[in-house]
Amino acid sequence: MTALLTAADTANILVEALPYIRAFAGKSIVVKLGGAALDDSDSDLDLALAQDVLLLRSVGVRCVLVHGGGPQVDAMLRRVGKEPEFRDGLRVTDAETLEIVRMVLVGKINRELVATINGQAGDEPTAVGVSGEDAGLLVVEPRDLSLGFVGDVVQVRAELLHRLLDDGLMPVVSTVGADAAGQPYNVNADEAARAIAVAMKAEKIVYLTAAPGLLDDPKDENTLVHRLTAPELRERISHASVGGGMIPKLTACADAVEQGVGFAHIIDGRVPHALLIELLTRHGIGTMIKAEPTW
Amino acid sequence: MTALLTAADTANILVEALPYIRAFAGKSIVVKLGGAALDDSDSDLDLALAQDVLLLRSVGVRCVLVHGGGPQVDAMLRRVGKEPEFRDGLRVTDAETLEIVRMVLVGKINRELVATINGQAGDEPTAVGVSGEDAGLLVVEPRDLSLGFVGDVVQVRAELLHRLLDDGLMPVVSTVGADAAGQPYNVNADEAARAIAVAMKAEKIVYLTAAPGLLDDPKDENTLVHRLTAPELRERISHASVGGGMIPKLTACADAVEQGVGFAHIIDGRVPHALLIELLTRHGIGTMIKAEPTW
Amino acid sequence: MTALLTAADTANILVEALPYIRAFAGKSIVVKLGGAALDDSDSDLDLALAQDVLLLRSVGVRCVLVHGGGPQVDAMLRRVGKEPEFRDGLRVTDAETLEIVRMVLVGKINRELVATINGQAGDEPTAVGVSGEDAGLLVVEPRDLSLGFVGDVVQVRAELLHRLLDDGLMPVVSTVGADAAGQPYNVNADEAARAIAVAMKAEKIVYLTAAPGLLDDPKDENTLVHRLTAPELRERISHASVGGGMIPKLTACADAVEQGVGFAHIIDGRVPHALLIELLTRHGIGTMIKAEPTW
Amino acid sequence: MTALLTAADTANILVEALPYIRAFAGKSIVVKLGGAALDDSDSDLDLALAQDVLLLRSVGVRCVLVHGGGPQVDAMLRRVGKEPEFRDGLRVTDAETLEIVRMVLVGKINRELVATINGQAGDEPTAVGVSGEDAGLLVVEPRDLSLGFVGDVVQVRAELLHRLLDDGLMPVVSTVGADAAGQPYNVNADEAARAIAVAMKAEKIVYLTAAPGLLDDPKDENTLVHRLTAPELRERISHASVGGGMIPKLTACADAVEQGVGFAHIIDGRVPHALLIELLTRHGIGTMIKAEPTW
Amino acid sequence: MTALLTAADTANILVEALPYIRAFAGKSIVVKLGGAALDDSDSDLDLALAQDVLLLRSVGVRCVLVHGGGPQVDAMLRRVGKEPEFRDGLRVTDAETLEIVRMVLVGKINRELVATINGQAGDEPTAVGVSGEDAGLLVVEPRDLSLGFVGDVVQVRAELLHRLLDDGLMPVVSTVGADAAGQPYNVNADEAARAIAVAMKAEKIVYLTAAPGLLDDPKDENTLVHRLTAPELRERISHASVGGGMIPKLTACADAVEQGVGFAHIIDGRVPHALLIELLTRHGIGTMIKAEPTW
Amino acid sequence: MTALLTAADTANILVEALPYIRAFAGKSIVVKLGGAALDDSDSDLDLALAQDVLLLRSVGVRCVLVHGGGPQVDAMLRRVGKEPEFRDGLRVTDAETLEIVRMVLVGKINRELVATINGQAGDEPTAVGVSGEDAGLLVVEPRDLSLGFVGDVVQVRAELLHRLLDDGLMPVVSTVGADAAGQPYNVNADEAARAIAVAMKAEKIVYLTAAPGLLDDPKDENTLVHRLTAPELRERISHASVGGGMIPKLTACADAVEQGVGFAHIIDGRVPHALLIELLTRHGIGTMIKAEPTW
Repeated sequence: MTALLTAADTANILVEALPYIRAFAGKSIVVKLGGAALDDSDSDLDLALAQDVLLLRSVGVRCVLVHGGGPQVDAMLRRVGKEPEFRDGLRVTDAETLEIVRMVLVGKINRELVATINGQAGDEPTAVGVSGEDAGLLVVEPRDLSLGFVGDVVQVRAELLHRLLDDGLMPVVSTVGADAAGQPYNVNADEAARAIAVAMKAEKIVYLTAAPGLLDDPKDENTLVHRLTAPELRERISHASVGGGMIPKLTACADAVEQGVGFAHIIDGRVPHALLIELLTRHGIGTMIKAEPTW
Repeated sequence: MTALLTAADTANILVEALPYIRAFAGKSIVVKLGGAALDDSDSDLDLALAQDVLLLRSVGVRCVLVHGGGPQVDAMLRRVGKEPEFRDGLRVTDAETLEIVRMVLVGKINRELVATINGQAGDEPTAVGVSGEDAGLLVVEPRDLSLGFVGDVVQVRAELLHRLLDDGLMPVVSTVGADAAGQPYNVNADEAARAIAVAMKAEKIVYLTAAPGLLDDPKDENTLVHRLTAPELRERISHASVGGGMIPKLTACADAVEQGVGFAHIIDGRVPHALLIELLTRHGIGTMIKAEPTW
Repeated sequence: MTALLTAADTANILVEALPYIRAFAGKSIVVKLGGAALDDSDSDLDLALAQDVLLLRSVGVRCVLVHGGGPQVDAMLRRVGKEPEFRDGLRVTDAETLEIVRMVLVGKINRELVATINGQAGDEPTAVGVSGEDAGLLVVEPRDLSLGFVGDVVQVRAELLHRLLDDGLMPVVSTVGADAAGQPYNVNADEAARAIAVAMKAEKIVYLTAAPGLLDDPKDENTLVHRLTAPELRERISHASVGGGMIPKLTACADAVEQGVGFAHIIDGRVPHALLIELLTRHGIGTMIKAEPTW
Repeated sequence: MTALLTAADTANILVEALPYIRAFAGKSIVVKLGGAALDDSDSDLDLALAQDVLLLRSVGVRCVLVHGGGPQVDAMLRRVGKEPEFRDGLRVTDAETLEIVRMVLVGKINRELVATINGQAGDEPTAVGVSGEDAGLLVVEPRDLSLGFVGDVVQVRAELLHRLLDDGLMPVVSTVGADAAGQPYNVNADEAARAIAVAMKAEKIVYLTAAPGLLDDPKDENTLVHRLTAPELRERISHASVGGGMIPKLTACADAVEQGVGFAHIIDGRVPHALLIELLTRHGIGTMIKAEPTW
Repeated sequence: MTALLTAADTANILVEALPYIRAFAGKSIVVKLGGAALDDSDSDLDLALAQDVLLLRSVGVRCVLVHGGGPQVDAMLRRVGKEPEFRDGLRVTDAETLEIVRMVLVGKINRELVATINGQAGDEPTAVGVSGEDAGLLVVEPRDLSLGFVGDVVQVRAELLHRLLDDGLMPVVSTVGADAAGQPYNVNADEAARAIAVAMKAEKIVYLTAAPGLLDDPKDENTLVHRLTAPELRERISHASVGGGMIPKLTACADAVEQGVGFAHIIDGRVPHALLIELLTRHGIGTMIKAEPTW
Repeated sequence: MTALLTAADTANILVEALPYIRAFAGKSIVVKLGGAALDDSDSDLDLALAQDVLLLRSVGVRCVLVHGGGPQVDAMLRRVGKEPEFRDGLRVTDAETLEIVRMVLVGKINRELVATINGQAGDEPTAVGVSGEDAGLLVVEPRDLSLGFVGDVVQVRAELLHRLLDDGLMPVVSTVGADAAGQPYNVNADEAARAIAVAMKAEKIVYLTAAPGLLDDPKDENTLVHRLTAPELRERISHASVGGGMIPKLTACADAVEQGVGFAHIIDGRVPHALLIELLTRHGIGTMIKAEPTW
């Protein structure tokens, strides 16, 4: 394909991309992985994503990956003979469930992401798994005692992330937090990613999803909304004009930009290199949210 | 008790301890935890150990903790309906077993150590869990294909540990390694601890065991050998005059000091604050091994 | 145009370009301008070139521009009533001619390049004109007394260039040199560019010409040679299989890579953004010369 | 003795001492020597003190020693045939007396302290004698013309002390000051020590005396007051419930903590290693004064 | 001559000069050259000036030279057949004239100064020619459209000068400026020198002229005014009690000191080493202006 | 006087002095004071010397002053009723004598020098008294047991001097040394000055004496030898063609330059500002010795 591109086409893409590359150098970007990105069945997609974050890192972008892993936790719970239980969409987390959550997130999903990235990184294996418990990264308080060990992030000690990034390393964060006594808690990954991005004063938070972005008509992928402001987004959320499943993520986006993150993006994790295209072209590929209408 | 000590007693201990404190400031010490130290049943002991490493860190010692966890892996394997299998004392590790090993070491034991230390550390939670896969810390090659994913450490990238220590953090290392393609392997924890100590040019490696140290008569705890050289130790190993179970650990000690680690220690993990006493008193509490007889 | 490109096309170009951008960050590149690049008649081309060097600088490339200006000197000489005189292709340079050469190169052409770049650079005017006399940059010895003040570069004090680059500035060098007593001399610009690139241990030297590069058949622009080694290039030069006018430039390329410059390039100054395409795509657009055949 | 201590006793002392060692690292402590500490007759005591300050220095405490020397001055005055003369407890200091004061403090007592410490310091002789005249350390104004060259400290230039400490050296300060014209003056050593501690923002000032500390009943050494606040101390001073000889020193203690020094201590210079015990155990050995009752 | 001086004479001059040398070390001094200093006919004078600035630089003074060159521009204009045209004392500057101005200032006069200084500087050629266009040094706005490209300095980006000085180099500045679009303008050299001195927070600005300084009686060189304040100077200017030709320079002096330059000096460029004598002796040789009467 | 000097005279002295000032900036110079310089009777001379070293320091010269004080020791010994005793020109130094030597050198002469310099130094009192015992500066071994505590310098720890100089301070050194056990010894001041200059890799050692320098005819002050090499000096010493009293000092000069000190000078301490004139004029005022004849 590339071979058929004219010199002018190539020049245009490069002329467009270089100012973004310059602008993002030294900036922090938090990428929340979910859905397709954590699905073992499409390893090409995983490799393209690993390549994207390694390329972005190579030009000075400070990438932090954040992941959850609900389906994988369910599978492991069932394997040890325990049925997952939810209340109002939240996982009821007793001590035994918490131990499984932690083993699956920190000991399995995080490990697989680290392995995929380091496997692509040649002789500079830069991915480092981090749990929210490490160095007090995610400090939580219990949300509702009837839910067990489910917590809300009340403080982020982002120093560890900054230090790893300063050393050229790429943190991959499991969203397990702890209270001051060291007791671990299960926390929502979309929320934790937002809290981390805000604490790091990140330039961007990017949610990789299984949809093209925010759609005017949730059933028609051709109705992608390219840009909108946080107030516009909150308006849509309040009128329920968005697909229901998207609401928590959209709320996290609005919160993020209102709390100081430069931009929030929702992009399609099913398109190879979607991250690179979203960040380095003028049109992007998904939906971009900004605090104020000053495009 | 302390109240009954005379001023002279107190002064003597302090006068003895301060030169050690000075000598170890800025030096690295690798502490391998096994047996009692990882046993949930004695949390007082865990707390004393957590206190020891935090106190040593507070006076500038760069502590790295390394752990294995065989019994806990066996328990989890059985929980998911898989019988542990060994050949010549080594765990046969197929892909499924490896996944369980990794979940237990990285997602359970490591987490519990981090939680215990951070729970003791007040508003400076300094423990950080690290897997040998992170930033290519432990590079391994397969040992014997018939054993599956069992590897030997062939390279240690200690930079990550040095950097965390430079930042005042305390790495807690799970002994899972990876090959250049990112494929994880199960590695022996005593060996991995030695390899890390050698790569870090550590001042000391300390093995916490369920015995007082090396005994002249393995059945009599009053026959503790306080000091010996690597050649003397190898002599005893070759004459099988030591308890059989100790041999791999003793060999690792001899290897460590011959490869540049200042001292290797075998101490009793069942005695509270054994680590502090071994390091900061002239007589110590366990067995100390040095390369050459220049005490 | 860009609008018609697929996401995959765009991704491919970016995936290809980023490793080059990383590789060149912090590296020095000397760009020798001649022919079209200095011709006032095509200001779009000038602007594209100014944009290219500013974009390259923005991602960390240390660009040095070097220029000559024979035709413009001839014009000024005639304007003050003096006919240009050459012997064996070299300008006979008496004191009066030298004064005109210096005024045209330093006071006119250099100024115009600085103005064009700074006019494109918004509120970061980074171009700085430099003469080879400044801070002893180009130390010369007379070549042949019968030619007057024509000199050969015998030493390059590249510190001034390094310092300007360290400060984020972009040196634009006029090829007037001086001897130890401060006496100025006229020097060949292709040669001076090579001497500067060698002294700076530059990654690349790029000659912008009015041809696509080295052609197998000098009359057929479709016979471009994409890559060759210095020995291959010398072979072609010795067999006169290249267009005569190209020989000094080609010799300078061979000299440069044999003296430590990473790569020499000859590209078409008439194609907008040729510099960017040559540097950031795998196929490039002109001819690349390397010391040894280790592509 | 130490041999009879149990592991638990030893562990307790160490667990108690380490947090102090950490807390004092990098902090400055001014130790005022008087009485027994300057008495030639007990060199064991001198050696224990030298050992204490060297050990404290070895773990990062920045120790400054300050001394006076009234009895020794009297002896030298009599040796050259001059009777010491006092008015209201202050030495009448004519030019000749001043010259003797200076010779004895700077040329004799200071020298002996430096020699004792350096004699204990092996191949790191770190003690450096300093007079208050050096680099304008103690700037004084005359107190009362009828007393001659007796001055009050009005400014402390502590830079010299900080710089010596930064270099790992240990200043031993003679309390001779000078006015702006370089004219020397005799100053009270307790007062000068306080002024230095305040100027250095010292963590502690410690007065070594020939008593256990502040006694409830000055005649009963078993009535030691372990801790009190500056207001409590001023209350006792105003009610004269303390031994008269102690009043100037106690006032200096109250002044010091009210002017920003963390703690003032009065300890028994006759007990070997009293300094170490006071600083590194919870109970201490003498009297500790703090500004506010926030123990 | 020197041989006849007594030791006391020599000592007096040195004792007088050293405090000035100390005081000026690290300070910036802007020297505006005009008249005799740019006149080719007295090269001894040029050499003495070059020696002076090199000597001052050698003891840490940060010297910036600024020059104009009206007569030389006139000569070149006439050489290419164009008659110089002035309106109210200002050169009417069309595009063609501007090109000649730039060639003469940047390509001829600046070059000659650089060559003279570097010719004296041995193996440390430190002079570097700079145009006001380089790195946006002199930002100008057009003064009056009917005058063509004549501009007033509205911003000075002094970073380039500071950086060159930091590197031990000596900038020689041609007073051509540019607007934001890169369009060059002709600017008044006395004014440009003042603007540079103000922007650099220079210690001094020194105008080298063809007169001894400010004279009480413009016709009597024995009526030199050694020192006066800016208000006194403005008073004289308003009463026209000074020679008319001096007024713009005197106004620039008053402006400079009122805008933060420490001192302005007007000295006789015809006296060898006038610069050195003015700066390093108590009496000086010309006229010194200060903002306020606090000599 | 200065007022009568012509501009040319002044310019000549300045042009001559500046290169020396540049050359000596950052260099170390050891000045040994003896004779007149320590004689209380001529305080003008003292003030001129203090001014000289302060001026030299102000332009970056790193000055170290070294002094002895034989006559003052004799006076004090007699004052306490003890007759000075010499053997082969060396003071017999029992413990009591040593105590007097130390009090006089460190507690009296050194103090007076410090006071004089600091009294001249305004609000930057930079003189700091140092004894050879401080921080192990002068390590000595006993010379001959029958002489008592008379030692030879066997090691110089110059770090303390370098550090004080780095901080802009001026060390004034008393020549008392100590052995490894801290025992003080009396050492020869000329010798100690040489040892310090050698250890500091000083540019110069300057001996201030009560003579114009080395004289061809010791009885005729007009026969001053301006320059000679170490071999020439040794030749003269061996032929006893120099005044006997000078021999130890001359030998120290020859030793110094042969051991790496750049130049040794012997100058007349009775001439005000002799130090400044010797260092900053081409002809100097005394005798200069260099290792090799490469003037």
